[in-house]
Amino acid sequence: MNNSQQYAIGVDIGGTNTKYGIVNHRGDITHNGRMSTSQYLTAESFVEALFTALRPAIEEVGVEHIKGIGIGAPNANYFTGSIEHAPNLNWKGIVPFAGLISEKFGLPCTITNDANAAALGEMMYGAAKGMKDFIVMTLGTGVGSGIVTGGQLIYGHDGFAGELGHTIIRPGGRQHWSTGLYGSLEAYASATGIVLTAKEMLAETDQDSLLRRYPAEALDSKAIYECAMEGDEIAKEVYRFTGQILGESLANFVMFSSPEAIVLFGGVTKAGDLIMNPVREHMEKNLLAVFRNKVTLTFSELKEADAAILGASALVWSIRKQGNL
Amino acid sequence: MNNSQQYAIGVDIGGTNTKYGIVNHRGDITHNGRMSTSQYLTAESFVEALFTALRPAIEEVGVEHIKGIGIGAPNANYFTGSIEHAPNLNWKGIVPFAGLISEKFGLPCTITNDANAAALGEMMYGAAKGMKDFIVMTLGTGVGSGIVTGGQLIYGHDGFAGELGHTIIRPGGRQHWSTGLYGSLEAYASATGIVLTAKEMLAETDQDSLLRRYPAEALDSKAIYECAMEGDEIAKEVYRFTGQILGESLANFVMFSSPEAIVLFGGVTKAGDLIMNPVREHMEKNLLAVFRNKVTLTFSELKEADAAILGASALVWSIRKQGNL
Repeated sequence: MNNSQQYAIGVDIGGTNTKYGIVNHRGDITHNGRMSTSQYLTAESFVEALFTALRPAIEEVGVEHIKGIGIGAPNANYFTGSIEHAPNLNWKGIVPFAGLISEKFGLPCTITNDANAAALGEMMYGAAKGMKDFIVMTLGTGVGSGIVTGGQLIYGHDGFAGELGHTIIRPGGRQHWSTGLYGSLEAYASATGIVLTAKEMLAETDQDSLLRRYPAEALDSKAIYECAMEGDEIAKEVYRFTGQILGESLANFVMFSSPEAIVLFGGVTKAGDLIMNPVREHMEKNLLAVFRNKVTLTFSELKEADAAILGASALVWSIRKQGNL
Repeated sequence: MNNSQQYAIGVDIGGTNTKYGIVNHRGDITHNGRMSTSQYLTAESFVEALFTALRPAIEEVGVEHIKGIGIGAPNANYFTGSIEHAPNLNWKGIVPFAGLISEKFGLPCTITNDANAAALGEMMYGAAKGMKDFIVMTLGTGVGSGIVTGGQLIYGHDGFAGELGHTIIRPGGRQHWSTGLYGSLEAYASATGIVLTAKEMLAETDQDSLLRRYPAEALDSKAIYECAMEGDEIAKEVYRFTGQILGESLANFVMFSSPEAIVLFGGVTKAGDLIMNPVREHMEKNLLAVFRNKVTLTFSELKEADAAILGASALVWSIRKQGNL
């Protein structure tokens, strides 16, 4: 059987919804769909429902043409196949998720966290195609990362490597609402962090701002973005400050693994030059000379709706390679 | 020919002196020696002198039993085989060093920077034996690092990965005397940084201190260590502060590559618990819960005189493995 007849199932499990699809080697997605995650109170009932949803598609393609199932999920451990203490999922503790899927579907299953899946997707189909050394940063509600060096994802000794959103960039700085850490990147460069920055800046000055039209509870990252696009000085300063902190962090990551490119992905990147100009400036300024003007800063080329499914399916094609670790 | 009859030449090139030896698979060093680096104004004349120094030993062992030559040198690039713009060496610009050695000796030659060589040495013969994910930090005049993930050294896309001494841990903080960067780890946790910290602390207070017995130009890291061991409060505070900054940095490195252990090496570690207690405290405090109490902080088990030669020779045994990258 040649590659063109082989398929992989890609599944992206989020706290609220799960997306899935069947993917060929070229990255074409067929039979894609979506189901609830949060309505299933046990992993077993979720797996059952996923099987029911995917069965017609699997029968149409032919199970003998499907190489395996790749899953991106929060707190998923590549080494153990378990989802471990995921705060945003109903199933608690350590769940042997890959085993459950594999048993139900009769197919090999590999899991990893969502940011690692995104990195694999970018390497196979996206902005990092052909690259062996790059970092993907997902900038959304949280800040996630997937790191590839020498063509391999970094998993670390326990499968949890690549938590760059939790690295400290302002020691003793803003306390993170969930981890309790002080001054971590995510506390500033996530959508939640950007809103906190805006509120702090508004509180520190009497300067007029479009942002003051919003009641505190309605001030979200979308509102800040819109005000910045209308030229509001405080909103623009929020992005400048966020970009500075992100740029300083990226400089540190570059001096760790010397990537060819850093691929940015997620809602926060929609602010475009407003945030990217300070990111670039402060990354370059904090780099050792040998790294300056060598790292490509780029946006993901994958459609946001497809990226997660493609990334998860990429796990299937890379199983043999990763198994060499 | 079995392994017990195979040897590697290990060469450690420093700015002032070069050390070399012939090493077997078990890490026994024979025929070790030392020569000047700085008296040779060209790489060619240095290679000639190294060949003259090593020739009797090579003839004794039998060139057919020698698998290759491994070299640790400042600014040495594993990918290109060149020493590039090394500030502490006489030979300037980009020197195709591995090629010069290989041609002169008639043996394959691999080079890398000194901290990477140290990491390979720890993996083959030292504290990281059997580990696949660890970081070696060399804390001396400067702060160097070698990072191993999945059993492979991280080189990055250009061969320059692993410059952890230059990561920023106090944004906008102390300016580095040579790189010009603000707030980098090396500006605080190197021997030079420790002396600067002591001078700053002495200037900020009138408190009595044994450190005040030294004229400014005589106050070195050895003096600070001795005063701290005698119980001097300011000297102890210098180590506490240095340990805090190092611990915060190590937390960031753990969240990047999730190593099983961090191996510390070099003069600064001689202060023992004085520095290690705050390092441990501030590393753990700044880690995401999933990483806490999992990372072994340990000292190198290699004799300092041998470590550099062993590390360089380890390059020879790992050539095939690294070639897979």
